Amino acid sequence: MKVHEIHKVPHRRYNILTGEWVLVSPQRASRPWQGKTENIAEDERPKFDPSCYLCPGNIRASGKVNPFYNQPYSFHNDFAALSEENDGLWLKDGLLLSESESGICKVVCFSSDHSLTLPLMSVKDICAVVTLWQKEYFELGRIDGVNHVLIFENKGETMGCSNPHPHGQIWAQCSIPQEIQKKTSHLKAYWKQHNKSLLEHYLARELVLDERVVIENNHFAVVVPYWAIWPYETMIVPKRKMAHIGELENDEKYAFAEIIKRLTTRYDNLFQTSFPYSAGIHQAPTDGKEHPEWHFHMSFYPPLLRSATVKKFMVGYELFACPQRDITAEQAAMRLKNLSETHYGLEPD
Amino acid sequence: MKVHEIHKVPHRRYNILTGEWVLVSPQRASRPWQGKTENIAEDERPKFDPSCYLCPGNIRASGKVNPFYNQPYSFHNDFAALSEENDGLWLKDGLLLSESESGICKVVCFSSDHSLTLPLMSVKDICAVVTLWQKEYFELGRIDGVNHVLIFENKGETMGCSNPHPHGQIWAQCSIPQEIQKKTSHLKAYWKQHNKSLLEHYLARELVLDERVVIENNHFAVVVPYWAIWPYETMIVPKRKMAHIGELENDEKYAFAEIIKRLTTRYDNLFQTSFPYSAGIHQAPTDGKEHPEWHFHMSFYPPLLRSATVKKFMVGYELFACPQRDITAEQAAMRLKNLSETHYGLEPD
Ligand SMILES: O=P(O)(O)O[C@H]1O[C@H](CO)[C@@H](O)[C@H](O)[C@H]1O
Ligand SMILES: O=P(O)(O)O[C@H]1O[C@H](CO)[C@@H](O)[C@H](O)[C@H]1O
Repeated sequence: MKVHEIHKVPHRRYNILTGEWVLVSPQRASRPWQGKTENIAEDERPKFDPSCYLCPGNIRASGKVNPFYNQPYSFHNDFAALSEENDGLWLKDGLLLSESESGICKVVCFSSDHSLTLPLMSVKDICAVVTLWQKEYFELGRIDGVNHVLIFENKGETMGCSNPHPHGQIWAQCSIPQEIQKKTSHLKAYWKQHNKSLLEHYLARELVLDERVVIENNHFAVVVPYWAIWPYETMIVPKRKMAHIGELENDEKYAFAEIIKRLTTRYDNLFQTSFPYSAGIHQAPTDGKEHPEWHFHMSFYPPLLRSATVKKFMVGYELFACPQRDITAEQAAMRLKNLSETHYGLEPD
Repeated sequence: MKVHEIHKVPHRRYNILTGEWVLVSPQRASRPWQGKTENIAEDERPKFDPSCYLCPGNIRASGKVNPFYNQPYSFHNDFAALSEENDGLWLKDGLLLSESESGICKVVCFSSDHSLTLPLMSVKDICAVVTLWQKEYFELGRIDGVNHVLIFENKGETMGCSNPHPHGQIWAQCSIPQEIQKKTSHLKAYWKQHNKSLLEHYLARELVLDERVVIENNHFAVVVPYWAIWPYETMIVPKRKMAHIGELENDEKYAFAEIIKRLTTRYDNLFQTSFPYSAGIHQAPTDGKEHPEWHFHMSFYPPLLRSATVKKFMVGYELFACPQRDITAEQAAMRLKNLSETHYGLEPD
């Protein structure tokens, strides 16, 4: 298709990391919306909430008491989806196939201050979160039978987050989940053929084209990937290949924290709301094998489409056929690129 | 794993149709929920709504006027995600890969009566909807360059439906979407090896085990598939292999309509609410090839988990790793099996 038509006509784009497609329908952005709108959660929160189960000193639902922490703090999830036992057994009963799964689920409080979110924290304080993520990745990954560690954050009610206290989660488990398997196999195939990181090549191309790059610093760039699914999906990619966050040197760690702050500030400014998203770090499995092909990245999947209250629904067609989006990746990148990095909540009236 | 432990310990289950896994965490069903709750849309609706763009005789957003239909009625979507032109071009620019896509999007009004939903319609009237689906599958599928026809319904605000008038959609397109490609390849592999339908074998096994079967009639059964993702996900499977709905004989068509009514009535009764879901019919591609491997089925993906207002969120872990559920498929089937088939809204006070 002619390159200039890509913002006008329906087309499919290929995700080089997963091997899957997204349907892009730019002409559809003009349809009216009479459907569901999201409630906006109240933005003003106290620094301490006596009823919050993540604030320092409070009692959690399980009866356990939080310490008076003043650094990022992690603990075992009281309602974990995984447990540490694994009887290692399979059920292979004709057409029914299952296997036992084991693992550890942790909660990571980013700050003791209940009122904050990542964009409102200082770069130094975000650095401390990254340090804790590194420690957890190493410690959990080292455990026998933990072959994958997923670090993620669900932010906002719209993304199923049940507590506004700034926090994320870590699910460490025995099997390597399919999203990571897909990416591993595509990264590996490219590595074998070119002896080079697929993402390093891709990022270099994006930096030259400069159509989907939102921001960058010395060590990282943020792009709306060519194959983005969510309206304002982005990916933070380190400029040099690192298999996991454990490889970050001190200045790189600072640069990572800095770019997280800048990106999430732009997100909040986009619709002048505390921007909901799921964010996750994809990195090398901890299965004891060498992973020279891996190039870690942090992706943001935000649902909002048109405003603070109108989101994109991934429903019928998307669930039964393939993901679909209206605005193009280039249009999304352009909008994010033109936003201020001063948080709207902090601007003088 | 020991079969009796499957309701207690975390495990993974394999989807024989797509080759993907779901993480099941039955022990987690007891966690408290303090997060987002859904609004319940008002259930009482007039038979005719002058502001509804799907009611007979009304003007749509595009300015077109609906006829005074009194049978299921279909028309071209005014804000289609696909268009009929296809310049057939590819962009293969190093690591960026896209291709133009074409197709036709239609809307199918199930009834002229604005107040109805499938469970509240008569079996005869649902039969008329199935007849229209058959006609559309044939007519669209016959068009040159339409290789796949997806018939689906998004029901309820929670599932992105912007109009409560009973309706579904059809997206017919050139490329075969990945969900259908995955299923085609698994059905085909089994067909080649056994000269038998994978789903026919699977259904026979389910009917013997009788742990996940919700209801059945002469020609169809409803099961919560072993690998179900959504809390109350089900699949309507014809007992004999049919590649697509066009193969339904008259008595089978009636049986299909009947089981749709019975299943959706049970859904409404589960939480005494008009039950939201995305439903879709997966069937043979219309690419002109023989598809002896295909066995059509209609799946329901409903988001509600605990009540009319608490849904399951497919977010962080689910987006970055793999789908996760709390209650087991067997527990869901048991609950659905024990419900009445008299609609709660129609029961005498
Ligand atoms: O076409 P509708 O009903 O306006 O839109 C709905 O269904 C579509 C197909 O599943 C989705 O792409 C939209 O996100 C959803 O809101
Ligand atoms: O663990 P939480 O925050 O209570 O729960 C949230 O995140 C989990 C992991 O993505 C999901 O499985 C839940 O559906 C979601 O509500």
